[in-house]
Amino acid sequence: MSESGFARTPLPPYYAVMFTSQRNDQDPQGYAATADRMLELAQQQPGYLGVESVRDASGFGITISYWESQEAIARWRAHGEHRVAQEHGKRDWYEHFEARVAVVERAWGKRQG
Amino acid sequence: MSESGFARTPLPPYYAVMFTSQRNDQDPQGYAATADRMLELAQQQPGYLGVESVRDASGFGITISYWESQEAIARWRAHGEHRVAQEHGKRDWYEHFEARVAVVERAWGKRQG
Repeated sequence: MSESGFARTPLPPYYAVMFTSQRNDQDPQGYAATADRMLELAQQQPGYLGVESVRDASGFGITISYWESQEAIARWRAHGEHRVAQEHGKRDWYEHFEARVAVVERAWGKRQG
Repeated sequence: MSESGFARTPLPPYYAVMFTSQRNDQDPQGYAATADRMLELAQQQPGYLGVESVRDASGFGITISYWESQEAIARWRAHGEHRVAQEHGKRDWYEHFEARVAVVERAWGKRQG
């Protein structure tokens, strides 16, 4: 289910989709299978740059996916299998979600050792 | 330990600082106290709009803070007590972190019931 770890993004500018969500306690297997499949599918899309995702034990999570362009994001949102998953999520899996699309302008980081 | 829950952000455009990090296992109390204090302090800064934060049991976490402007972000990064905490984090608490500043252009969401 969604990899943990850091995305290896290029130098800005690029795009980010921030998805903050509270899972309900329904259908953990169905949800996990779909989350896995969506990650696999996203990675195959043109313009995909990476993803960072974390969810805590209460079901509160943040997933950020990174993209080369607005067009790449629009194509992914409109992808048939992804649309079915989005509808499923809205209806059955999320108590609440907020999605935001942003342009990353600056980035920095540090890894120890 | 940073609140859990959703930020109540205004209509775009506004700014987001995405902070993805892997904690080491050092000094959990010191880290938690500083994280609490930084959240309290951030909330008092001009231009602060909200925060969303989650960390899993492995110590991998994402925190997104939202701001009215680049200037508000720059002021917060330069805040004396925050600078001390940033240095402490880089040196002692994070195995790896990546920070990104972005302009949020579009947003949508849904809450059940």
